[in-house]
Amino acid sequence: MRKTKDENALIAWIERALRSGKARPLAVGLGDDAALWVPEPGYETILTCDWFLQDSHFLRRKHPPDAIGWKCLARAVSDVAAMGGKPRCFLLSLALPVSLTGKWLSFFLAGLRRASGRLGCVLAGGDTTCQDKVLISITVVGEVGRGHAIQRSGARPGDLVFVSGTLGEAELGLRLLRRMRGMAKATNAALRKHLYPQPRLALGQWLAENRLATAMMDLSDGFSTDLPRLCAASRVGALIYGNSLPVTPLAQTGDAQDLALNGGDDYELLFTVSRKKETRMPHKFQGLRLTRIGEITRERKILLINARKPARLRPGGWDPFRQS
Amino acid sequence: MRKTKDENALIAWIERALRSGKARPLAVGLGDDAALWVPEPGYETILTCDWFLQDSHFLRRKHPPDAIGWKCLARAVSDVAAMGGKPRCFLLSLALPVSLTGKWLSFFLAGLRRASGRLGCVLAGGDTTCQDKVLISITVVGEVGRGHAIQRSGARPGDLVFVSGTLGEAELGLRLLRRMRGMAKATNAALRKHLYPQPRLALGQWLAENRLATAMMDLSDGFSTDLPRLCAASRVGALIYGNSLPVTPLAQTGDAQDLALNGGDDYELLFTVSRKKETRMPHKFQGLRLTRIGEITRERKILLINARKPARLRPGGWDPFRQS
Repeated sequence: MRKTKDENALIAWIERALRSGKARPLAVGLGDDAALWVPEPGYETILTCDWFLQDSHFLRRKHPPDAIGWKCLARAVSDVAAMGGKPRCFLLSLALPVSLTGKWLSFFLAGLRRASGRLGCVLAGGDTTCQDKVLISITVVGEVGRGHAIQRSGARPGDLVFVSGTLGEAELGLRLLRRMRGMAKATNAALRKHLYPQPRLALGQWLAENRLATAMMDLSDGFSTDLPRLCAASRVGALIYGNSLPVTPLAQTGDAQDLALNGGDDYELLFTVSRKKETRMPHKFQGLRLTRIGEITRERKILLINARKPARLRPGGWDPFRQS
Repeated sequence: MRKTKDENALIAWIERALRSGKARPLAVGLGDDAALWVPEPGYETILTCDWFLQDSHFLRRKHPPDAIGWKCLARAVSDVAAMGGKPRCFLLSLALPVSLTGKWLSFFLAGLRRASGRLGCVLAGGDTTCQDKVLISITVVGEVGRGHAIQRSGARPGDLVFVSGTLGEAELGLRLLRRMRGMAKATNAALRKHLYPQPRLALGQWLAENRLATAMMDLSDGFSTDLPRLCAASRVGALIYGNSLPVTPLAQTGDAQDLALNGGDDYELLFTVSRKKETRMPHKFQGLRLTRIGEITRERKILLINARKPARLRPGGWDPFRQS
């Protein structure tokens, strides 16, 4: 496959690969100085951006370019799910070596196109440049009915703490991937979750539209790092029942709880529900498990109870600046 | 100055440094999964993003961190000026080495804060991570009255071609900077334009509100590379009078036209005006020179006329993928 000959050709290629047949919410997309977006009356706009960088967030020799294309958009869209909104369009900032502007780029764009179609989020614009490593920054624009967005700051003492799905599976997938030779393949649920995460859009929207959650966020850096952020924003603490955590059945006994507490990249939703709405919470939403794992406390500590012995929960998730 | 101890501390620092006293157009800014933006009724939203990368767009040992902070926002805002819009808020994706999270970061944030205040564009959110080089991607959100945005595609044969300010000055500034020892200082107009470019917001808005320009873009990669993009979007050609180009008086004779044609980073506006509105165009707008430099032609070639001899204009501006 030919490499791109200049920046104009690269932009034209990206535009062709991601052109959508659907009616676009855009007045002007690619090919101008900026995109023009027509907001829906009565809605607020959600704005979020995410890094996805070679060697920090993915490995060139291990992660298939198709999965990189899927995941860079899916993880940014997950922040829209966490507000209870619908994704609409995205901007792609892409830097890559000239040597990857042939076959690698074509698989990357195929994965990105699949995510764009599946998540209902069209390409609106972006910026491209040449670098010796692959650098991606994605901005996602979404919408949510005015006053319906679920923030991190709304949890109140007595609220119940829920998570969707299982925790720690993506981290387990990463460990399996590290042990594989060459490019990884999604041969089991853990690898699938690591390579092709599914933002919980339908659940987030359902919780927002029915005003069921008092606070919400997505789990990207790991439960033990993310829960304290929700608690800090709400000025509360929490009591977590270790035995209730929805651990992955794929893990070795012993590892499972550690993976659930500290594994990143799950993109499940963590949310709180007031006690009087508890009966309205199903055990499953569209096949996705919902688990009550604790409660919000007035005292601003986060305690983990395992076999009746409460202990302080220490952040053990992902922090790029932690000096260990 | 102390280095940051973790990602939460870094985000809190950035938030403090860029907190704005002004009423913000945001429902929720930093500290949640995403920002919530309340669009103005009757307006369209402008979305644009720009890379600003160490070694590609700036040099760590030559460019003062304060100028990097200013310029990363100013150049992204310039795309909003090019649509005739007003900037509102921005998202900052910042990756940097731990060693720069002390003094360097504090100067960077001071420059960014100044740009944010001067350009009326508040921080809405972002993403931070650790890398061995400084990587910046900025997304700017702006607004423009519905139907008033000026696109690249509206130029018609017979329209007159205008540029603001002088061309090639920023490139001259870069050449001076390369010859300086240590950190550069803005000791003359060329260095000032390279280090602290001024997006032409007032001019862009005036042209849009008065429906004076048929097409517009900002000059970031150099006139000879950017003009063909406007012409391609409008499906037209152009005839440029070499002697009319507003060259910088700071250049050596001989160099001046080459700088004006191929120098990047000027962030001046290139726009076209229909002949019947020519009389409404002043020679200066708020002290900024406006120069008529040519006309749009039906034939899709771009010709440069110097001393009566027309020649094809070859793109000689910035292209990160060109193999020279």
